[in-house]
Amino acid sequence: MFQHSEKSQLLLAKLKTFMDEHIYPNETAYAEQLHRAENRFAPLPLMDELKEKAKAAGLWNLFVPEDHAQYCEHGGLSFFDYAPLAEEMGRVIWAPEVFNCNAPDTGNMEVFMNYATQAQQDKWLKPLLAGEIRSSYAMTEPQVASSDATNIQLEIKKDGDEWVLNGRKWFITGAMYERTKIFIVMGKSDPQNPSRHLQQTQVLVPKDTPGITLIRPLTTLGYDDAPIGHAEIVFDNVRVPLENVLLGEGRGFEIAQGRLGPGRMHHCMRLIGSAQRSLELACKRAASRTTFGRTLSKHQSVREEISKSFSEIEMARLLVLRTSHKIDEEGVAASVDMIAATKTTVPLLVQTVIDRCMQMHGAGGLTEDYFMAEAFNYARWCRQADGPDQVHQMALGKKIIDRYADQ
Amino acid sequence: MFQHSEKSQLLLAKLKTFMDEHIYPNETAYAEQLHRAENRFAPLPLMDELKEKAKAAGLWNLFVPEDHAQYCEHGGLSFFDYAPLAEEMGRVIWAPEVFNCNAPDTGNMEVFMNYATQAQQDKWLKPLLAGEIRSSYAMTEPQVASSDATNIQLEIKKDGDEWVLNGRKWFITGAMYERTKIFIVMGKSDPQNPSRHLQQTQVLVPKDTPGITLIRPLTTLGYDDAPIGHAEIVFDNVRVPLENVLLGEGRGFEIAQGRLGPGRMHHCMRLIGSAQRSLELACKRAASRTTFGRTLSKHQSVREEISKSFSEIEMARLLVLRTSHKIDEEGVAASVDMIAATKTTVPLLVQTVIDRCMQMHGAGGLTEDYFMAEAFNYARWCRQADGPDQVHQMALGKKIIDRYADQ
Amino acid sequence: MFQHSEKSQLLLAKLKTFMDEHIYPNETAYAEQLHRAENRFAPLPLMDELKEKAKAAGLWNLFVPEDHAQYCEHGGLSFFDYAPLAEEMGRVIWAPEVFNCNAPDTGNMEVFMNYATQAQQDKWLKPLLAGEIRSSYAMTEPQVASSDATNIQLEIKKDGDEWVLNGRKWFITGAMYERTKIFIVMGKSDPQNPSRHLQQTQVLVPKDTPGITLIRPLTTLGYDDAPIGHAEIVFDNVRVPLENVLLGEGRGFEIAQGRLGPGRMHHCMRLIGSAQRSLELACKRAASRTTFGRTLSKHQSVREEISKSFSEIEMARLLVLRTSHKIDEEGVAASVDMIAATKTTVPLLVQTVIDRCMQMHGAGGLTEDYFMAEAFNYARWCRQADGPDQVHQMALGKKIIDRYADQ
Amino acid sequence: MFQHSEKSQLLLAKLKTFMDEHIYPNETAYAEQLHRAENRFAPLPLMDELKEKAKAAGLWNLFVPEDHAQYCEHGGLSFFDYAPLAEEMGRVIWAPEVFNCNAPDTGNMEVFMNYATQAQQDKWLKPLLAGEIRSSYAMTEPQVASSDATNIQLEIKKDGDEWVLNGRKWFITGAMYERTKIFIVMGKSDPQNPSRHLQQTQVLVPKDTPGITLIRPLTTLGYDDAPIGHAEIVFDNVRVPLENVLLGEGRGFEIAQGRLGPGRMHHCMRLIGSAQRSLELACKRAASRTTFGRTLSKHQSVREEISKSFSEIEMARLLVLRTSHKIDEEGVAASVDMIAATKTTVPLLVQTVIDRCMQMHGAGGLTEDYFMAEAFNYARWCRQADGPDQVHQMALGKKIIDRYADQ
Repeated sequence: MFQHSEKSQLLLAKLKTFMDEHIYPNETAYAEQLHRAENRFAPLPLMDELKEKAKAAGLWNLFVPEDHAQYCEHGGLSFFDYAPLAEEMGRVIWAPEVFNCNAPDTGNMEVFMNYATQAQQDKWLKPLLAGEIRSSYAMTEPQVASSDATNIQLEIKKDGDEWVLNGRKWFITGAMYERTKIFIVMGKSDPQNPSRHLQQTQVLVPKDTPGITLIRPLTTLGYDDAPIGHAEIVFDNVRVPLENVLLGEGRGFEIAQGRLGPGRMHHCMRLIGSAQRSLELACKRAASRTTFGRTLSKHQSVREEISKSFSEIEMARLLVLRTSHKIDEEGVAASVDMIAATKTTVPLLVQTVIDRCMQMHGAGGLTEDYFMAEAFNYARWCRQADGPDQVHQMALGKKIIDRYADQ
Repeated sequence: MFQHSEKSQLLLAKLKTFMDEHIYPNETAYAEQLHRAENRFAPLPLMDELKEKAKAAGLWNLFVPEDHAQYCEHGGLSFFDYAPLAEEMGRVIWAPEVFNCNAPDTGNMEVFMNYATQAQQDKWLKPLLAGEIRSSYAMTEPQVASSDATNIQLEIKKDGDEWVLNGRKWFITGAMYERTKIFIVMGKSDPQNPSRHLQQTQVLVPKDTPGITLIRPLTTLGYDDAPIGHAEIVFDNVRVPLENVLLGEGRGFEIAQGRLGPGRMHHCMRLIGSAQRSLELACKRAASRTTFGRTLSKHQSVREEISKSFSEIEMARLLVLRTSHKIDEEGVAASVDMIAATKTTVPLLVQTVIDRCMQMHGAGGLTEDYFMAEAFNYARWCRQADGPDQVHQMALGKKIIDRYADQ
Repeated sequence: MFQHSEKSQLLLAKLKTFMDEHIYPNETAYAEQLHRAENRFAPLPLMDELKEKAKAAGLWNLFVPEDHAQYCEHGGLSFFDYAPLAEEMGRVIWAPEVFNCNAPDTGNMEVFMNYATQAQQDKWLKPLLAGEIRSSYAMTEPQVASSDATNIQLEIKKDGDEWVLNGRKWFITGAMYERTKIFIVMGKSDPQNPSRHLQQTQVLVPKDTPGITLIRPLTTLGYDDAPIGHAEIVFDNVRVPLENVLLGEGRGFEIAQGRLGPGRMHHCMRLIGSAQRSLELACKRAASRTTFGRTLSKHQSVREEISKSFSEIEMARLLVLRTSHKIDEEGVAASVDMIAATKTTVPLLVQTVIDRCMQMHGAGGLTEDYFMAEAFNYARWCRQADGPDQVHQMALGKKIIDRYADQ
Repeated sequence: MFQHSEKSQLLLAKLKTFMDEHIYPNETAYAEQLHRAENRFAPLPLMDELKEKAKAAGLWNLFVPEDHAQYCEHGGLSFFDYAPLAEEMGRVIWAPEVFNCNAPDTGNMEVFMNYATQAQQDKWLKPLLAGEIRSSYAMTEPQVASSDATNIQLEIKKDGDEWVLNGRKWFITGAMYERTKIFIVMGKSDPQNPSRHLQQTQVLVPKDTPGITLIRPLTTLGYDDAPIGHAEIVFDNVRVPLENVLLGEGRGFEIAQGRLGPGRMHHCMRLIGSAQRSLELACKRAASRTTFGRTLSKHQSVREEISKSFSEIEMARLLVLRTSHKIDEEGVAASVDMIAATKTTVPLLVQTVIDRCMQMHGAGGLTEDYFMAEAFNYARWCRQADGPDQVHQMALGKKIIDRYADQ
């Protein structure tokens, strides 16, 4: 009960050791490499070194689920068993990539596992699993409420043996990254289809296809999240062969549904780690900092805030675990209520916890001397990522009302 | 995982049926009997009828823990397995008594099971288990911060073969109730003992002992919680035989420690039920009430609040379950951190949820036409009961800081 | 600037003295008279004594506005100048009646001043101003969202030379009070009128008119607010002469508009006083109570909460003053935005402040030993009174969006 | 009442016109100049052009208070009259510099006006007033709680006819800016002085003095606030002549006291403008954006949030005005309670309002396409600037408790 499999526990122990030995000690070096980089979206040498070490340590592709065991060495993990591992990686913003477990690639790889042809898998999934290339999921558009996938407007037209794409996307995570080679693009191929859920198609578009322009990197609260980043992109008569379709014409919405739920959960898992680490930093600070003749830890207000933060993190973690467990038992579709509850609760809660922990650090808490400022941005951003919380609350609220209305 | 034993599930199903058949349909009748009562602290006929039905249905003494199986017919339940049952009972403020599961009697019966002599058990525990009498736990005092048991000042002096008690208590739940026959009284018997934890003793004091004066019933937010109620009591040279000591002289603090943790958890379990029922009422209201030409359920703000409330209740429930499970596995003493986290989080969260649900009911939501107003008072009161939240946060905050300070 | 007229300042000084000499010292006596009353809705002797003293002190009918100077001895006060006086009275829940300044009578008296014929004034306004009788404003109905006056359904039909009323009202403040003699009743007289704002009429209905049944007193959070109280009332073929109409047929909405804005402001003014007194009690408690070896006042968390409460009360007070000043300068109609901002902000803020102050008092803070519990109920109830906050936020939000949308 | 002088109103009208004509239309150009700058801390050509225009428009040095009328053309403004002007400037993060009204220079210029010799004024105040140079106020240190000025540790020793400075400062606003020429440095000159308030001295240190090293620019939430910025600085045997002392040896604390209160108020004034503009942006967004078939403005939740934000901004603005007025009437020293209330309330409130407004803008709300993200950072940062809120709450809470404790 509340207990993870032995396999998960062993991997977690190994992962903690790896974090202690290779990740935390390199936080400053990583920041400096990025700071000195001529191109902030080029791969960092340190990342490549660490990836090799993670592979060697058997800490690679931990996200791969049980039913896709063939794609990884460790044999796959349930959602529930992956949660503490993702939490651990979330303690350093850039750590997930070290283990090939970063967004959006994990979700994209799952799309390839679930919906791609053998040829598509050979060409793109293999190097993704090897960490040689990166990918983007191009769905969000500036002009529409993209949280509802049926709103997507980018035009996908069949022309002879090609798809022709025209439109604009933004907040396309990873698109700026030099290592990214492939975009999964969602667009509208059949605007007249009477079913809103059959109007969309997803196609594979190599990043170097003519007609693609990376307009600019986008920032959130001033962060560019380099080297992975978020891009605004224009597609101007971009052409790819018909075989680049995923799953089939008109099935884009279906893919999106399967893709997004797990992605939201992975964000939440990592955010728990961000909050937990912030809490631990706050505890260390409280124990070591003296103001007005007493250590901070003796101030009742500090104790109350630590107590509150501890309790809230614990609740958030339990919610993530509960939802993960439900996904394992009943699948993503049956778990949309709990996924929505998690997605609309955890990021805001984590933002609040980190805000408190930063405040205990004085002005320094807002700087890059700690990881909290960037983690705060991550939590804030997740209240918008994959749809603003309000849209999910609209759907969840309606569902709960219906559930109890006629009882 | 997150799943209760078959036994617990069967009892829950039976309990839900009982609530549907006997409790909810009697809410109005119960309110009227109480309203018309000449003495608000006399037993209500309806309660006695329902108790017989609950016994007949095998829904009696559900609180009895596994390691005290001999005291009940159902063979005892773990904390974890009792949680959903207590939650269910919490859906109606006065329901727990129907099943002999109300505070403070459950905690007091556990004290008898754990610490009383056979003679003490024969005299008091038996009729308590049978629901024939009720009891009070007389600890809190108006002049000291009673959340720290070592502060208790009521004087207990040995005089010949008697204990003599002098002092004042308040918020003594159940003391006003006519059916209550026995007080467990905590006092200071050895003020000079160098160990603060050995200064206290607990003695059994029959309610009709000369020298006891029930000063007045106390209210919280205007509620007297009749017929159980909360009393202010004066002890003026109250004498009981030496054999009335519990466990032994100087061991009062030890008893209090074992007594209070589980009691706090039981409150939280019931509060989850109060919040859940409030949410369900709000859903029904949202689906049926029309304002400004639309049903409430179509207002985005209503959906957001329902969504938030659903998520928060789920988190609170998980926290209660997690802590219950820890108590089952590791005992109360090892679980004080999680008990404190639960006690300082759930009542405030439930108060907030109920406040929202009341607001959706218009002015009527604040009346006795719904159970929400009284449940709101229950949640608010629990932020003080067994010590104000702030005192528990002080201890928990300190513990968490120490845990991470030197890592 | 931010400064009240000399007249207002002098009255405030006198009022403070009166509170010190006659109100605070009688709080216990008042509670006891009410507690011992056979009929909780009968006038209390103590109230009558105090009213005579207030009259003698020149502290009578302070609410009368400047433009109705003829109705009072002091010559009328602006909204802005009345605010600090109403705040002062709000420090004791029942104090406003002592000065003939309690809801709903102040609002009702203004209705008489503004809209009644000389005959109507002679019959009802005179004894109201003298404090000899009390009145009710019967608008809210259980089945409709009464915050929008156009929803009111009670049927008012002309039959010969009489109005015939049929319908149900609830939360009719004052109706239970024995001293109450007259109801101002709002109903629908012309349901087919194409203008929703011309369908309503208000008529004067003596409380003893046949066909009126007081169903029950209503409570909020357990409080019956006796002796004034809130009633549920049925009107069954209640007949009054045509001359009992106020202002004219079809002008009920117009009256309601003028009536409700000032009423909301008066509640907010009094609530500031409730919050301020709670804060002062919390300060006294913090300075005198010792826990864990330190006075509460030395705990940083207590200081933060006192600091927060002080700042929030100050902001709320300024908002009340600002809105009052706008009403003085531009009238009620032009001030609906600021009235809505005040009405939707102050009660919730005050509820939060009082909740904190109660918590600092330990369990005792929730009892009748302090005035905070009842003041908490008053604040909570005002979030529903005169329409739930959400309805006012709907209107205000729309207005603000329109204001800036096209700039 | 609540009304500003005609002079203030005229300047405000002129300022609004200037903002419309010269500031808002240049926001993109400014961002691009900064983005393309080789040195982010070099002066921007656009800023210099705009400063000339502001001078020409008579919108220069608006911050200068009435009692220093000789330093400006407009004759000085009271705190109360300056508030709406500072609010207006706060609508664009970099706008205050255009009018020579940016922090920390305004505060520093006031220090020169109040405490500097004629020679010091000639050398530094004149070019500051002319906008030719900029300045820094070097007080905060990484190792101590600098919110209490008596904690400052940087060593200032007299050696012959020179002061010798050794120590480390951080968050020294403006120090990175190329245009900055002079530092006002606070340090400890007399550590043994029995009065903690006489141990500190402030000296003028030209930025190019040998021994000064600008270690690095600091960021908050990822923002470097270029070109003004915040620096970490080391002072290593930095020598300045004795005549560079301000006011006199041992009078540093006295200067700090006078300097910081007004500075905090100026931040709050500007933050009101930031919040107000965010609200206006949110209104425009709500009116123009359609999701799920309805404009955002029709969603009840959006209306509630707009309503709440409007009300909160109004309260915050009133608090700023009230405190400003008190400073005008009674001086800074007598207003420390209201300054603390303002400083600990407004930034957090503004942060919350902007957070809501950003959220209504979807993912774009977090980018540089709007000014909200940077304004959010400004508000967040002000909860630390000039001392963390908690330190001010400690002092204010204590003061309020004392005020009411013995009444």
